[in-house]
Amino acid sequence: MGVREILRKWGVTDFQVIDKKALSEITLGASILATGGGGDPEIGLLWAYNVVDQGKEILLIDPEAMPDEALAAIAGCLGAALVLTEKPPNGQELFWCYDSLRRYMGKSIEAVVPPEAGGVNTPVPMAVAGAVGIPVIDADGMGRAFPELQMTSFYIHGVSPSPTAAADEKGHVTICDASDALLTERIIRNAAMAYGGISWIAGYPMTGRQLKDTAILRSISMAWDLGKRVFNARRKHLDPIAEAINLTGGYRAFQGKIVDIDREFGAEKTKGFSLGRITVEGTDDFKGRTVVVDFQNEWLNLEIDGEVRCMPPDLICILDPATGEPIRTDIVRYGYRGTVLLIPAHERMRTERGIATFGPRYFGYDRDYIPVERLMESTSG
Amino acid sequence: MGVREILRKWGVTDFQVIDKKALSEITLGASILATGGGGDPEIGLLWAYNVVDQGKEILLIDPEAMPDEALAAIAGCLGAALVLTEKPPNGQELFWCYDSLRRYMGKSIEAVVPPEAGGVNTPVPMAVAGAVGIPVIDADGMGRAFPELQMTSFYIHGVSPSPTAAADEKGHVTICDASDALLTERIIRNAAMAYGGISWIAGYPMTGRQLKDTAILRSISMAWDLGKRVFNARRKHLDPIAEAINLTGGYRAFQGKIVDIDREFGAEKTKGFSLGRITVEGTDDFKGRTVVVDFQNEWLNLEIDGEVRCMPPDLICILDPATGEPIRTDIVRYGYRGTVLLIPAHERMRTERGIATFGPRYFGYDRDYIPVERLMESTSG
Repeated sequence: MGVREILRKWGVTDFQVIDKKALSEITLGASILATGGGGDPEIGLLWAYNVVDQGKEILLIDPEAMPDEALAAIAGCLGAALVLTEKPPNGQELFWCYDSLRRYMGKSIEAVVPPEAGGVNTPVPMAVAGAVGIPVIDADGMGRAFPELQMTSFYIHGVSPSPTAAADEKGHVTICDASDALLTERIIRNAAMAYGGISWIAGYPMTGRQLKDTAILRSISMAWDLGKRVFNARRKHLDPIAEAINLTGGYRAFQGKIVDIDREFGAEKTKGFSLGRITVEGTDDFKGRTVVVDFQNEWLNLEIDGEVRCMPPDLICILDPATGEPIRTDIVRYGYRGTVLLIPAHERMRTERGIATFGPRYFGYDRDYIPVERLMESTSG
Repeated sequence: MGVREILRKWGVTDFQVIDKKALSEITLGASILATGGGGDPEIGLLWAYNVVDQGKEILLIDPEAMPDEALAAIAGCLGAALVLTEKPPNGQELFWCYDSLRRYMGKSIEAVVPPEAGGVNTPVPMAVAGAVGIPVIDADGMGRAFPELQMTSFYIHGVSPSPTAAADEKGHVTICDASDALLTERIIRNAAMAYGGISWIAGYPMTGRQLKDTAILRSISMAWDLGKRVFNARRKHLDPIAEAINLTGGYRAFQGKIVDIDREFGAEKTKGFSLGRITVEGTDDFKGRTVVVDFQNEWLNLEIDGEVRCMPPDLICILDPATGEPIRTDIVRYGYRGTVLLIPAHERMRTERGIATFGPRYFGYDRDYIPVERLMESTSG
């Protein structure tokens, strides 16, 4: 059964065809929202372009169009984005994951939902949808990127990541089926490390009903819109950051030059993450001021002149002021110039269980979560 | 389908019923051959007795009786035996493993083969066979115990451990399906550590033909015979060690008192193994001489007065001289008295690939493998 048959079976007539232009726009928007993580968009795009070139259709549908009882699953990669650049996928990994899940569960997965907004984990699920012949749902599990498997709106609203299947480029497959989400994360991450630092995964099997109740809805459309605006700003020499702020309701919090990067090394210490901290010296309106940003795959916590101004799960996006291109934690270098954009996390990410799962204390900060809106108000006040 | 139906289908009329007495004899023999590893026989026996008490039949058949195309798999536990004593199984773990394998492979497993000779991994597969209603094959994968998943005659003769399923007592399941056996070992061991140090596993799915070509054949009968002889020696106040030597063709290499135990601690260092070294001071005929034995779950390497006298995969068994009861690496204490029995490994374990997989160099000793027969000849010479 192909994607058109599935949509016919579901009675869905309203969908969007994702062509290469759409892919590039969506991926740019998603990589901005990925808060410094999410990996190299070149890799995700290459994969997705290849699927389109093979004549496969990538069809995006609204979450409400998915039947309550149909089954969706995430598809994407897990591990250190830095490794991904050196260990490109062969394109079969996620087929192996889907096939393993299908065999293990004895049920077919009829839709793909991206796990997060990211340069890899947004276009790649689209590529998988096209290649497998199933639709991709206009939603994701974070509205941003996060480093660990359980850090999703799915999980905090009651959907288990299990069973999750993880494959590498040699066809090695690991399936974890555990009621304990942190255990699943640990076993799947161990597999990623055993595979050489990165793993391709499919998991979080969920019904359409569960997806509608737990996902960040229509976030692909939002990334698409963001990507279009930034491309447009580039063409017309407008300020891409202003476009991003208009759309997302974020704050232009800082502008400066990266003067220090303190990166952790060694698998024992980093557990397969890109870990560290950067220091940014203010320029323009921010001259004389200093920003420090910690990262674990994503930008996590931001301080301006020693005062916390953004905590997880709120979004810290550091963008090239001229192009709006995101600066990622895996490739950040001394001397890069960036504008810091802070965006409130989606309300579905800000529940009590959300803050416990990916708030400041989970990441080792001894402080309660305060929304970025309040932290930024106190700045101007 | 029950075990009798399977045997009828296969045309097998010759089998042995394993009752509680047989279980205790087989388990004693197997725990002697386990070379200090293999875990607490009380746990394995308790599980198997329970299955017999429920009226289930445990039927042992000769490997030649198994059809070439039928499917067998191992069942047992993987991890540090020390943990097993504190984290007893609930009896369901291996059903979950078998069921996961069946679903993943889309094929039923019709026979159980014990992975090794051990206090746990010999009686437990028998319990599983009884509970699932399939026969147990008179064979195993080592003729001794070894710490890692790939260290089997199956593997060195071309059978892959994958897919292997690993479960804990809470029903968490991990399946690894990798062509690379060392990767499978790593991922399954990581799962065991994530589960709290121990995991129950089913794996090495193989046909009857593969089993006949690769297993240590009739090793359960041999363990049974050994157990009977030692029980008999105890009853009749005979020397149990002499009985073991008569049957196995081993060497009485040393007798002494354990005067030092140097045990490694911490998961980072031990990777879930019982690791360390003991020193034994000679008594009786061996007065004034000293033995040092290294262990990694099992006794691995033995030196008498600084000269190597036994290397893996040959068997180092340290037995209580009065009862023939094995002294295990996980419970060895200062002051224990032991007789050291050295037994040549089965020829199927001594191939070039066998020595590469579990010979001295694999365990970090910078020396070529020399069979215990030659090492012991040079002692007397």
